[in-house]
Amino acid sequence: MQFAGSHILSVSQFERPDVQRIFAVADRMQPYAHRQRVTKVLDGAILGSMFFEPSTRTRVSFGSAFNLLGGEVRETTGIENSAIAKGESLYDTARVLSGYSDVIAMRHPAAGSVAEFAAASRVPVINGGDGANEHPSQALLDLYTIKSELAGRGRGIDRLRIAMVGDLRHGRTVHSLCKLMCLFDDIQVVLVSPQELRMPGEIVEQLRQSGHKVLESDVLEASIAHVDIVYSTRIQEERFSSQQEADLYRGRFRLNQSIYTEHCEPNTVIMHPLPRDSRDTARELDDDLNDNPNLAIFRQTDNGVLVRMALFALVLDVVDLVDSCARDVNWYTAGRF
Amino acid sequence: MQFAGSHILSVSQFERPDVQRIFAVADRMQPYAHRQRVTKVLDGAILGSMFFEPSTRTRVSFGSAFNLLGGEVRETTGIENSAIAKGESLYDTARVLSGYSDVIAMRHPAAGSVAEFAAASRVPVINGGDGANEHPSQALLDLYTIKSELAGRGRGIDRLRIAMVGDLRHGRTVHSLCKLMCLFDDIQVVLVSPQELRMPGEIVEQLRQSGHKVLESDVLEASIAHVDIVYSTRIQEERFSSQQEADLYRGRFRLNQSIYTEHCEPNTVIMHPLPRDSRDTARELDDDLNDNPNLAIFRQTDNGVLVRMALFALVLDVVDLVDSCARDVNWYTAGRF
Amino acid sequence: MQFAGSHILSVSQFERPDVQRIFAVADRMQPYAHRQRVTKVLDGAILGSMFFEPSTRTRVSFGSAFNLLGGEVRETTGIENSAIAKGESLYDTARVLSGYSDVIAMRHPAAGSVAEFAAASRVPVINGGDGANEHPSQALLDLYTIKSELAGRGRGIDRLRIAMVGDLRHGRTVHSLCKLMCLFDDIQVVLVSPQELRMPGEIVEQLRQSGHKVLESDVLEASIAHVDIVYSTRIQEERFSSQQEADLYRGRFRLNQSIYTEHCEPNTVIMHPLPRDSRDTARELDDDLNDNPNLAIFRQTDNGVLVRMALFALVLDVVDLVDSCARDVNWYTAGRF
Repeated sequence: MQFAGSHILSVSQFERPDVQRIFAVADRMQPYAHRQRVTKVLDGAILGSMFFEPSTRTRVSFGSAFNLLGGEVRETTGIENSAIAKGESLYDTARVLSGYSDVIAMRHPAAGSVAEFAAASRVPVINGGDGANEHPSQALLDLYTIKSELAGRGRGIDRLRIAMVGDLRHGRTVHSLCKLMCLFDDIQVVLVSPQELRMPGEIVEQLRQSGHKVLESDVLEASIAHVDIVYSTRIQEERFSSQQEADLYRGRFRLNQSIYTEHCEPNTVIMHPLPRDSRDTARELDDDLNDNPNLAIFRQTDNGVLVRMALFALVLDVVDLVDSCARDVNWYTAGRF
Repeated sequence: MQFAGSHILSVSQFERPDVQRIFAVADRMQPYAHRQRVTKVLDGAILGSMFFEPSTRTRVSFGSAFNLLGGEVRETTGIENSAIAKGESLYDTARVLSGYSDVIAMRHPAAGSVAEFAAASRVPVINGGDGANEHPSQALLDLYTIKSELAGRGRGIDRLRIAMVGDLRHGRTVHSLCKLMCLFDDIQVVLVSPQELRMPGEIVEQLRQSGHKVLESDVLEASIAHVDIVYSTRIQEERFSSQQEADLYRGRFRLNQSIYTEHCEPNTVIMHPLPRDSRDTARELDDDLNDNPNLAIFRQTDNGVLVRMALFALVLDVVDLVDSCARDVNWYTAGRF
Repeated sequence: MQFAGSHILSVSQFERPDVQRIFAVADRMQPYAHRQRVTKVLDGAILGSMFFEPSTRTRVSFGSAFNLLGGEVRETTGIENSAIAKGESLYDTARVLSGYSDVIAMRHPAAGSVAEFAAASRVPVINGGDGANEHPSQALLDLYTIKSELAGRGRGIDRLRIAMVGDLRHGRTVHSLCKLMCLFDDIQVVLVSPQELRMPGEIVEQLRQSGHKVLESDVLEASIAHVDIVYSTRIQEERFSSQQEADLYRGRFRLNQSIYTEHCEPNTVIMHPLPRDSRDTARELDDDLNDNPNLAIFRQTDNGVLVRMALFALVLDVVDLVDSCARDVNWYTAGRF
């Protein structure tokens, strides 16, 4: 695809070379995100951060990514209810707000609304989550993390072996990640969930049609024995009709250090889209894994900054200018990464 | 007036040369707002954005305008209730908060409160709306839009012919615009509203005392036949005692493309302070006008950025430094304006 | 202490030379805070401003201080409820959010939570108030104000004579200030409060063990007759079980210009942590003091910016670079300080 001036709305818009291009640019962002270098390539540019649904980490991650490229952020949080209550169309909202910035990152509770907004926007729009629909930068950062974690081991996304564990029915992130994996070759996917929370059939079908091998299971231990990645997810209790119903599943698949040691291959990477549920009744990833160097969950969120920097640099077409607007960091940064 | 260090509180504080000065500076802001050039003239300066009443577009417009001059924005949104609930006076609030920035843009629900705040502030304050009272930057951007739209046609603000349509009783923007028009010559104003929502008598009187010709009507079609500008407004339903009462008037004056084609002179400019009410029961400006090149409503909001940049540059006295701190934009901006 | 990379969590972590170091750095920040000079020493750095409890002045003061050093601010306000409601631990929250910035300023309603967060953070954390527990930058700015106000009179913190007046039981600021004063010599403290709102015994004990002289009183006039500083505080009505109970004490000790003239030594300095309660039923510091040049309450909040700039410069280890990244201010700043 042509990135300059494009909207980033869905993982479906990417071909394999597009994903590889994003990852190559994300790699080049490391000195800036890891605070060795400062770039001012977007000095003077403005990000419109429009989070019409509450979010802390995705919102701050987008904002920091833009700051790290030298740009400014103008933020709107909470429901944009005043104008909408007065009968304003999403078309009008988009025409107006897109006059105030150079690029927009947007979250909205209604599926499809970000694409509708983007159609009327005069500047590129990056989807930061539209309800149960899409959250493409999350899927990209997950896959980028897989690539990065396996890079030093002579393994990659092609021929990946991954177990996805937990609430595979409601988890937007695992759905999108599966779609992205369809662009790659010979992946083995073990789907571990309660019967009632299985991965939707059409996604399993898509994986198989892409030539991937898919196993489904409701037993954790055997499923994580021969994989490169264990991708754990939270039971999304807010999606159930009652807390009682959710509690039937919370705590069903718990990974802790002793299970890891007993069942996993050495250096199996542990991922999770976060937040993980650390209450005693859930603990899908136990705190005793916190010192395990293969727990990649915080490197995952760090990678979100890299991927979002890459998306901004690509849609604003400044990739090749980043390094020429740079200098060394002059403040204390020890021990951060 | 002397702009450097002054507060901008009301349209009443301007003489004609002041308005012309603001517009001349706004013109010079175009390369920056339209993303051809970046200026850092206010690099290091801080705008205190104090919106004690919710607002998205005015707040973001002020913030983006300040960013476009190179400055930073520190924002407060929502009711500043904590200190006030503890008995703090507006004087104290102003003394404290004005120590944190170089200029303040403020909205407050109580009429007169921004002026009271400004009296105690140690830095210039720009009124972003104080209840039903004043919103001077909106009136300036409306008049600036009129000037800009007519500039290429050998017509100007003097000898302007304008129809104002809709809820002329409650609309703060039409009131302020009328006051500003009193600084100019030989204007013909057609006021189109339901009987119950007529323009307040004292404003009509002011227009007439300035030598303008004022007609009042409750019929749309004939009223827009010989004007340069149709300025449509929304029925401000939140100002009525009941939705039923507001609904008596919503949808009464609808302009759409076929009425426009049949009744208006070629190239009659359509304006609206936004948001427009696009629900079927209202539609004061139909969506089928969206492709009409004379629909200026989004150029109007874009002009808001220019006018606010001009106000900041004037009160901080940097107008003549803007261009000397500038360079070309280096990111993708195609198709934006 | 070693400032570079350290958290600032409590006044208890400071020795006397640490306080003096902070004040010396704060002094050097004056040309920047008072808008004579602009420094870009932290150009490219990001402050994560995490106010999980509402705050306007402390939040904006931290943000402006960081902007004045050239850095960017990414802000989160309100309860961070989404992830916590989903069972995320403070450890996880800290690991994630500390990946998005270079330093964090944090307020949280729960005592001890900021320290818990800091333990997991990968970047320095500055406590902006954790419930009734600590608010170290407030105590520092109070003591810095005392030093600054007395500097021209040949008096200093050693041998200071201070009266603290009002709700000494609930006031977090007077508690912390007393702890800081224990690092200095020969201070005379007069504690003026209703019997029921006396300074906690352990703090009085700490002052005495440090060699300070402490008097307790419930009469205002005689207590302020021979002091350098009158530090007035508000009756913290929100801490009482009923408004009626609070109203027993509100308005008990009122300082106004005539009492000041009659009882105080010339040039006695008046301080207050703000907000002051200006309602007729309270008025602990009357409005008629507003023109008294010894009313230091707004210089106090201004000094908060200096102290916070100093803390940022110290923990990020850029103190000696501030002046080399500087230039003169080029916008209008007359009459501000």
